[in-house]
Parts: sequence; C-alpha cells; structure tokens
Amino acid sequence: MLLRTKRDVVQCVASGNLEIPAEESCVTITAILVAEGRSKTGYELHIKNIKVLSKPHEISPIVINQKIVDTSIENLLDYRPITLRNEKERAIFKLQEGICRGIREFLYNEHFTEVHTPKIVQSGAEGGANIFSLNYFGQEAYLAQSPQFYKQMMVGVFERVFEIAPVFRAEKHDTSRHLNEYTSVDFEMGYINSFEEIMEMETAMLKYTLNYLSEHYKKEIALLDLNLPIIETIPAISFHEAKIKIAEAHNRPVKDWEDFEPEEEKLLSEIIFKETGSEFVFVTHYPSVKRPFYAMDSKEHTNETESFDLLFRGLEITTGGQRIHNYEEQIAKMNKKNMNVQLFESYLMMHKYGMPPHGGLGLGLERFTSTALLKYQ
Amino acid sequence: MLLRTKRDVVQCVASGNLEIPAEESCVTITAILVAEGRSKTGYELHIKNIKVLSKPHEISPIVINQKIVDTSIENLLDYRPITLRNEKERAIFKLQEGICRGIREFLYNEHFTEVHTPKIVQSGAEGGANIFSLNYFGQEAYLAQSPQFYKQMMVGVFERVFEIAPVFRAEKHDTSRHLNEYTSVDFEMGYINSFEEIMEMETAMLKYTLNYLSEHYKKEIALLDLNLPIIETIPAISFHEAKIKIAEAHNRPVKDWEDFEPEEEKLLSEIIFKETGSEFVFVTHYPSVKRPFYAMDSKEHTNETESFDLLFRGLEITTGGQRIHNYEEQIAKMNKKNMNVQLFESYLMMHKYGMPPHGGLGLGLERFTSTALLKYQ
Repeated sequence: MLLRTKRDVVQCVASGNLEIPAEESCVTITAILVAEGRSKTGYELHIKNIKVLSKPHEISPIVINQKIVDTSIENLLDYRPITLRNEKERAIFKLQEGICRGIREFLYNEHFTEVHTPKIVQSGAEGGANIFSLNYFGQEAYLAQSPQFYKQMMVGVFERVFEIAPVFRAEKHDTSRHLNEYTSVDFEMGYINSFEEIMEMETAMLKYTLNYLSEHYKKEIALLDLNLPIIETIPAISFHEAKIKIAEAHNRPVKDWEDFEPEEEKLLSEIIFKETGSEFVFVTHYPSVKRPFYAMDSKEHTNETESFDLLFRGLEITTGGQRIHNYEEQIAKMNKKNMNVQLFESYLMMHKYGMPPHGGLGLGLERFTSTALLKYQ
Repeated sequence: MLLRTKRDVVQCVASGNLEIPAEESCVTITAILVAEGRSKTGYELHIKNIKVLSKPHEISPIVINQKIVDTSIENLLDYRPITLRNEKERAIFKLQEGICRGIREFLYNEHFTEVHTPKIVQSGAEGGANIFSLNYFGQEAYLAQSPQFYKQMMVGVFERVFEIAPVFRAEKHDTSRHLNEYTSVDFEMGYINSFEEIMEMETAMLKYTLNYLSEHYKKEIALLDLNLPIIETIPAISFHEAKIKIAEAHNRPVKDWEDFEPEEEKLLSEIIFKETGSEFVFVTHYPSVKRPFYAMDSKEHTNETESFDLLFRGLEITTGGQRIHNYEEQIAKMNKKNMNVQLFESYLMMHKYGMPPHGGLGLGLERFTSTALLKYQ
C-alpha cells in the first residue's frame, strides 16, 4: 500500500487479514517504522491497524498513483483536482512555492517592503489592447496588467518595494508562453545610479533562490530529476548587438530592428550558452518605440532605453529598467507618444512632488518555474 | 534637516554655508554620526556634504513632514502617493507587512504549502449578488470572491495549503467595514477531527504573529503608540448563546435569530472583554441558512453549522469552519438549497474521488490591520 502524505509517498506493508481500503481513501494508520534500503524514503511502515476516515464515492478514471500520470493533456487538465495529487505533478507546485520563498527571503534581507496594490484600476499601465475591462458600478474599470504605477509610487514611500501577486492580460493564451492571469514577481528600488543595478539585484536574487531550492527542496528536485542552472555572472548584450549576432550565426538577415521574434530569443540563448556556459542572458537597450512611456531613454542613443530583458533557456522571463523620475521629462515623453497627460494625474503626482532615480522589474513566476523544469544542456 | 530613509527619519544638522535643498529632494549626504540623547533614533548626523540627485517640480500642497498629516480624509486619499510618505502613514503598511510575514512563517512551520489560485473564475464560491463580472473573450466570467473551491481542492493534493492574495466583492464600500478588493489570508487543512482544530490553529497563528510584530516591528509599534492585544486563550460562545447574552445584557429582544447586526458584534466583544479580558472571541455554530452550501451541518442540531467567526475588538475578522467532504452529503445539501449541481462538476470532482475531513478559514488582512491600530482598552 502506498500512503501519500503532505510531501512524501510512503511504502507500507500490510500483513495478516487487514483489509486494504480503496484507492484515495483517507486513513489514519498505526504502524511500525522499519528501515528499508530499497524504499525511496529509506524506510517502510509495517501496518498494525487502519482506521478509514473517508472513502471515495467512485474510483478515479485517471490513474494517478504511478510515477507519471499517463494520459492526454486534456485529461490532465480536465481532471486537475485529481491529477495534481500525483507526486510529480504536485512537486512542480511545491517547487514554485520554494521559488517564492527564496525570492521573498532575499528581498526582505535587502530591505524591500512588501506591498499589496489594487488589481481593479482606472487605466492600464502597459497600454495596448490586452486589458480586461469590467463594469465597476456603472463605470468602466480594468484589471491591472502590472503593479507598475503603484510600485513606482511606493518607491517614494519605502525606497524599495516588492509584490508577488496576480496580473491580468487579455491576449491569446493557447501558447506555451502566455497566460491570461499569471503571478508577477515585481520589485522596484530607488537611489540607483543606472539600470545595471537592477540587473545586479536580479542576479543576486536568482542566485539566492536557486541555492534556496537546492537546500530546502531536495525532494522535489530529485523526484523531478531537475538540472537547475548555476549562476556565476549573467552575461549582457545590447539588443542591437544581439540582433547582429543572431543574424551572423544563422545567416539570416535582420527583418525587424524593433523587437525579437520568439525564435530569435531561442537562438540567442543557444549562442550565449555555447560561448559562455550561461543559461541566462541579459539583453539591454531595447528600442524606445517598443517600451512603455515610463521607460528612461539612454543619454547617448535617445532612441534606445535604459532597459533590459532577461532570457532563461530561450524564454524571456523578466522585463525591467530605469524609469523616468523627472516630471518635465515624463511629461515630454508622454506628449511625444501622444498620450492624454490629464488621465495620469495621480500617477504623475510622485514625479511632480519629488522622486529619486529608480527602476525595477517584473518576473513571470510561471515562466520561470516551467523553464526551470526543462532539461537544457 | 530631516532625512527620510527606508524606515527611519533621521535628524541632521547642517552648519556653515551648506545649502539645504527643497523638501522632498532626493539626496546623498556625507556626514558624521553623533550620539544625541534627545533625538528619537539616539543619534543625529552632522552633514559635511550634500549631493542632490533629484528635486521636486513643485512643493506638495499637503504638509507631510509633521508627526501626522493634518488634513481632511479626502486630501489624505486624493494625495495618497504623497501622504503615504509621512512616517506614521507608512508605518501602518509596514506593520501590515509584518502581519503577513508572521502569518507565513507560522504556516510554513506548520507544513502548509503556499498556492496561487485563479482570480478569473467561471462561478462564484460564496454565491449572492456581490460578484464582479467581466467579458472573457465573449463569455461571462467573474472575479473570485474567495479562493474557497481551489483551496479545498488543494487539500486533496498537499493536505494543508494557504494563500495570501486579493479577492473581490461587488458590494457597498463606503463603510469602515467593506472594501471591493481586499487581501484575504486563507488556509485550509485536512485530517481534522472537528472545526475546533481550525480555531486552535488560528489562535496559534495569531499568537505567533503578534509576537512576531513585537519582536521585529518595534519601531512602528512605538511610532503608532500601539496597544497590541495579548492572546492567552480565545473564549468561544455559540451563536445562539451569544444572541441571548447580548439581549439580556442590554435588555433588547432578539429580532433576528439568523445573523448578527454589526452593533451586536460590538456589544458581544465588550461583554466578553469585561468577563474575560480577551479582545478576541470565537462565535460558533452559525445557522445553516446563512452559511454557504459547502459548510458542514452539526450532527446534533442540523440547522446549525460546524462553523465559526472570530471577532476582534467588535469586528468580524475571520469566517471559518469544517466543510462537507462526503460526495453524497454535498449533493444532498446542494439539492436542498436548489442549486444546479451540474454547474459545479469540477468542484465536486474532489468529493467524488475522495477527500479527507477538512476545514479552513479566511481572514481579512486590512480588517485585522486596521483593528490592531485601535485603542480598545
């Protein structure tokens, strides 16, 4: 008999005329703990008594007590409350917990304050059409695409803030890259000299978190046979250089100088991995046309921004950068983008009454988790 | 000059011909640290040099550098990005961070797994009209009123789970008791013998959290001059007995045997405080008609539920209880409430394929924080 507990699956032996209850029965057992080298846990339980607390009404049509749930993706999702009970399926979400814990512990140590920002908002931070609207007592309101405005405001209050919370994007989601709601890990910090300090903070955060997993989530790492990356330093390359490097390596002309195709992100990660052994790469100085109105432009090349993305194993997992803190500069950029400044009065209050140089990032928790599960090397 | 840092306001002295920058300028200073008994921090800074990193465009019309922000509630909220910079205003949210940290640390120690559940949902968990609807690619969807369904499902996976995340209620909010979105602290645990075990877990959680605040948030407690409650045990009284007790103490006949008026919650808290010295009181066995369809009915009195609320200083801050885990029992109760069982197929999957006896609670983070700020005694 296999006994599933909070975190382990324990091998049990019932002898004599003990009646073994149906699968997914919930039981209390009295047993003797016996060392057993062939068991995964190093021990097994010799059952003396079983008390059945509850019995299933039916036996699940999906087999969940094997090493993997051997079924279609449709079944895996349609029966999610049950298929998640499989030890490998649930280990993914236990690992995700570890990522959150590691990140929070790191950020608390670095004197970030945790905030809770509104999710029903009056205007979108990221612009574009991918925003959910809802009826708010007769007025149109929106679901927050990111905590961008609020976390910036809170830099004026606590200097360093973070939030791990849901954000909402009304975009196509039948892809391996998109979700309509995901958990965004956001931090924002003041008194920076350059956006590179945000990259340094993220590098340290990821290092800490991966170490945290290795230390506290050994069981899940072993069960999922994970090959977690090791971070020493993370290489950085400018968007422009990256475009040229990919074009040269694959003999394909650059068609779009404003953005990456997903394919290019994969190719770049492969090139950087071959060159440096790093499974992460920062891409910096994205074109201004593709970045939001709050992004700070570079002093030397004003059509580029003081911004970055972080690619991990071919997938963008973070967008970040320095923000405009000067009121006149922010107004000028909004005018240049033909925005209605009056709609952003409460956002611009912080710029008007004084803000430190600051910046931050957003990291997609599910993207990071799922990419960490891949075998890359 | 007063220098506001992440968590402190530091007294500075500038001598000679140093130019003092405008209020809310962001600066780097070079200074000598000097012990100073009259300063709140025990020291002051003698400034040698000031480097101005940024200057405000205008001086804030609201004075925020005094002990309190002396303005109307309208101004306090309309200028929130600025008024939160006041040291007392921000201390409230720093304290709220401490509450979250204390709760999480406690729950991790008790082997709860942290989960992230969907906020866009197909049906409401709590029923009633107070649900926000949105257009989800042409279909009607809703904002989650609570993570109820999901946290129960996840008990089948991890036995003990928790989430601290936003929930949404479309109800009147121009009161001191309601918010349209608030941060809900939810936990749910399996293998319980009775709902009293949930109350015991909450008592231990609150004890731990209050101790955590006393240890790590001394600055904010002193600044806000807080009188945090001390928990030994929390008295419990049944709903029925409570009704009678209030009626007798205040010579007012019971009009409604199904629910409390807010006034009655205040009166009950006062009575219990006088009798026992406790600022918390559990009220148990709420009538079935007023509790959701997943609440377990009592065996002795089937019109009562195995449920509780926790009142703190006159305000309900928690609702919890044991849930139905048996499939037939759940279907029967839904039929009794004239519900369309087919709409809840994915929710009922866990009951059908086996669930342990379980229960849990939801605690309103903002209610708990704001009530902790009150002077009660």
